[in-house]
Amino acid sequence: MNIKITGTGSYIPTEIIQNVDFENHQFLNADGSQIRHPSPVVIDKFQKITGIEERRYASEELNTSDIAFLSAEKAIADSGIDPETLDYIIVAHNFGDVNKNSSQADTVPSLAARVKHLLKIKNPYCVAYDVLFGCPGWIEGVIQAMSFIKSDMAKKCLVIGAETLSRVIDKHDRDSMIYSDGSGASIIEITENTGGIISSASASYTYDEANFLYFGNTYDTSSKDSTKYIKMYGRKIYEFALTNVPKAMKKCLDQANVDISEVKKILIHQANEKMDEAIVKRFYELYEQEAPDGIMPMSIQKLGNSSVATIPTLFDLILKGKIANQSIDPGDILLFASVGAGMNINAFLYQF
Amino acid sequence: MNIKITGTGSYIPTEIIQNVDFENHQFLNADGSQIRHPSPVVIDKFQKITGIEERRYASEELNTSDIAFLSAEKAIADSGIDPETLDYIIVAHNFGDVNKNSSQADTVPSLAARVKHLLKIKNPYCVAYDVLFGCPGWIEGVIQAMSFIKSDMAKKCLVIGAETLSRVIDKHDRDSMIYSDGSGASIIEITENTGGIISSASASYTYDEANFLYFGNTYDTSSKDSTKYIKMYGRKIYEFALTNVPKAMKKCLDQANVDISEVKKILIHQANEKMDEAIVKRFYELYEQEAPDGIMPMSIQKLGNSSVATIPTLFDLILKGKIANQSIDPGDILLFASVGAGMNINAFLYQF
Repeated sequence: MNIKITGTGSYIPTEIIQNVDFENHQFLNADGSQIRHPSPVVIDKFQKITGIEERRYASEELNTSDIAFLSAEKAIADSGIDPETLDYIIVAHNFGDVNKNSSQADTVPSLAARVKHLLKIKNPYCVAYDVLFGCPGWIEGVIQAMSFIKSDMAKKCLVIGAETLSRVIDKHDRDSMIYSDGSGASIIEITENTGGIISSASASYTYDEANFLYFGNTYDTSSKDSTKYIKMYGRKIYEFALTNVPKAMKKCLDQANVDISEVKKILIHQANEKMDEAIVKRFYELYEQEAPDGIMPMSIQKLGNSSVATIPTLFDLILKGKIANQSIDPGDILLFASVGAGMNINAFLYQF
Repeated sequence: MNIKITGTGSYIPTEIIQNVDFENHQFLNADGSQIRHPSPVVIDKFQKITGIEERRYASEELNTSDIAFLSAEKAIADSGIDPETLDYIIVAHNFGDVNKNSSQADTVPSLAARVKHLLKIKNPYCVAYDVLFGCPGWIEGVIQAMSFIKSDMAKKCLVIGAETLSRVIDKHDRDSMIYSDGSGASIIEITENTGGIISSASASYTYDEANFLYFGNTYDTSSKDSTKYIKMYGRKIYEFALTNVPKAMKKCLDQANVDISEVKKILIHQANEKMDEAIVKRFYELYEQEAPDGIMPMSIQKLGNSSVATIPTLFDLILKGKIANQSIDPGDILLFASVGAGMNINAFLYQF
């Protein structure tokens, strides 16, 4: 009995926001003071670190649950399953449905219930729930689906990561340029085929780290705006991720007794290009090796950081031949890894 | 190998709101028109149907994650486990942390991460996540914990249901009198002892029912308030619950091959007294029997409907001898059942 991803789909929002579109933003420090450099300089530095050239925002009429549905439809078609045979629909997100021009999150009914409704699935025993686990939510959903299959509670699960971060950003915060919208979906099935999930690891670091990513006030301390926005302590996250993500990745590999040379691709949360490169470098250093060229496909340059959506979207784009010079062949061993609010970290090792 | 609840705890908020406290509310119909009867008449009718005499609101300085923590501390102490040995912290809620006098939900980091932080647990392999599944969230969390234990991913889980519905109610809506705040927690463990979870059932009805409970505008159509509040189609929910909840309860019993005469207590979501009585009556009718007296302990009279928190709180109160004429003895078979937004229904059969 193996547990495999038998279909993938993604929804790439249609609004392209380029770095130059932030040039008239008044970027401020956390204390409200003016950043020393003019916006074009801030943007140039931003691009060098994060790799982000542009990002995607969902159009006004679409909400997180809508784009979740749009990616789910594609994953179902890709797998060829009858949606009525799904045992679970698991939607990972962090902010719920946030209408454009509103600050209120809408999570009742759950986004999974909305997706199931839009998919017109009638079978009541297809259980639909949401999981909140920071950016690593999609991987955690896959791990939960794996548990349901192993414990004989499911045979087929739809796991979606969807987010519209464009609705929760502070335009005075440089970090607002990082965030984007997106959705990626996968069908996880029990199968007689070879390969599938080999091992997994999850961790929550909350003792000192719980508020490294948080919901906070605008940096414009002069304004009366009491709305909360996504905020982060970037430097702390960088150091935390570099120490702990390679450890979780190693845990997966060691559990599985798979040699690092067998890993063909690392699909890592598209958080920040420099950070991701440093994580992978550090991971290979744990085995006294250098990271092979092209081991880490990236989509962040054009898609930004869409939280839970980055990994399932990236995986789908590679499989559909949409990432230059990247492909996955039968038998390839892939390592998926993520880090985000919580602070949570997880990973799974997978044979395609 | 059995899976048992080895500790329980609850937090009863301290602000008591009596029905008379709603007498000066201007109750409106959904279309904004004035309700024909004066408030005291509306309140009297409300009490006769729901059974609710008073309800509890969390004090201003406490948020959902705070009361989740307060109930969790008690459950951990009750079970006697070392919190560092927990493999999972699962927090069921639906609206996140909503500060008093704010309409914005805060879900980053997850409430589970906040609870773990407050518990000062250092072990990173205690995985903390939130589940959104309407009012049946706590039962669903227990079912997920069961899956993790069965699939060898966990031995000990903390499952919490916590909500502060007082922060999302429309004062012009009669239904606002139903809702309350609360938190209940349980430790779920693998054990060599007899008893434990015997069977379970979950279902999501979303085809026609997804929006029976929803986030909507105030009934005060003359106001400029664009805030969204918890709203429901009470009559539709009543009919839906009466048809489908007994079915899920029966599914549990039939799966387990347990005779209905062996069921000692039914712990049902405290939604509405008349509805709960009708569900239990209908359940016994499926077996051509009458519901035994006292089979269904209730806490709704004094605690209202605190969503995910009602069942774990009720269970804890019975075990602590705080519900008059109700007790649970070793070997007793209990049926837990819930229904709520999604629309979701679930149940599990349990031997104490």
